[in-house]
Amino acid sequence: MRYGIAVFPSKKVQDVANSYRKRYDPHYALIPPHITLKEPFDAEENEIEEKIIPELKQIAKNTEPFSYGIYKVSSFSPVTNTIYLKVEPSEEIFDLNDKLHTGSLPEKKDFKFVPHITIAQKLSDDEFFDVYGSLSMNKFDIQDNIGRFQLLYQLENGAWSVYETFRLGEG
Amino acid sequence: MRYGIAVFPSKKVQDVANSYRKRYDPHYALIPPHITLKEPFDAEENEIEEKIIPELKQIAKNTEPFSYGIYKVSSFSPVTNTIYLKVEPSEEIFDLNDKLHTGSLPEKKDFKFVPHITIAQKLSDDEFFDVYGSLSMNKFDIQDNIGRFQLLYQLENGAWSVYETFRLGEG
Repeated sequence: MRYGIAVFPSKKVQDVANSYRKRYDPHYALIPPHITLKEPFDAEENEIEEKIIPELKQIAKNTEPFSYGIYKVSSFSPVTNTIYLKVEPSEEIFDLNDKLHTGSLPEKKDFKFVPHITIAQKLSDDEFFDVYGSLSMNKFDIQDNIGRFQLLYQLENGAWSVYETFRLGEG
Repeated sequence: MRYGIAVFPSKKVQDVANSYRKRYDPHYALIPPHITLKEPFDAEENEIEEKIIPELKQIAKNTEPFSYGIYKVSSFSPVTNTIYLKVEPSEEIFDLNDKLHTGSLPEKKDFKFVPHITIAQKLSDDEFFDVYGSLSMNKFDIQDNIGRFQLLYQLENGAWSVYETFRLGEG
């Protein structure tokens, strides 16, 4: 099965993100707004149960909850036409991302970690310039907390279902 | 915020359910296939954190994982035109449903508990008779396990996001 690890931000942030995703993100229906902490990887269910979940519990236990800010949108252009709420980088979120690429957890990173919440993707170039031109004028002043992360798995229709939650600072 | 408690069945069951939901369930994009254990209720986040989550942990700890079978589809007609995969009733699932209506957890039950996985809803009467006539001929022979339940909350767009997972038999 295909697994991934993500944080679902608080309701207020998810509602803001969805107000854009509804119009601009074809993945709107496949998963709620999220910060990907680990790109999708393939694993067997027994490996998940016996090795990966115990390690995720340890990582969660050894990581204190932390806060982050969102102040603007940004984009991965010209690599892709993805637009996102920029999660202000912090030592805490980079540390957590690093920990999730150690031990039994696949270490492969296809991309440098850029913490973000996607709000638009797969736009045509014309749409992208139009939408990004307008969204990039927006200023945000959002403070939010990360107190847990989620192990998800992908269904045949592409949607993601939560397998388990891991609370930071708890074991 | 509006909360609910549900079980997400295994991937194999979710994939079967989605093969029907895609065509017949307008809630397809709002939540993965699920067994509702507690109807939506309103609560404040501090009440969730301080009272409800500790009680859910206790309930999970005191409930052993259990299996269930799916052998046929059934429907809530004539009350509603909902069609569902019938979760074979068992003492375990009724007990768990009962426990989730005790203590600080709202006790109100609008309906008698009928364990099910919705695959079609809000059909017109004509569609209903057509779809149910065809689906009710199907026989299933699915065995699945319930090893956890999830506390969810509803976003402004109607979609449900997972707040936390509770593993049965673990504290």
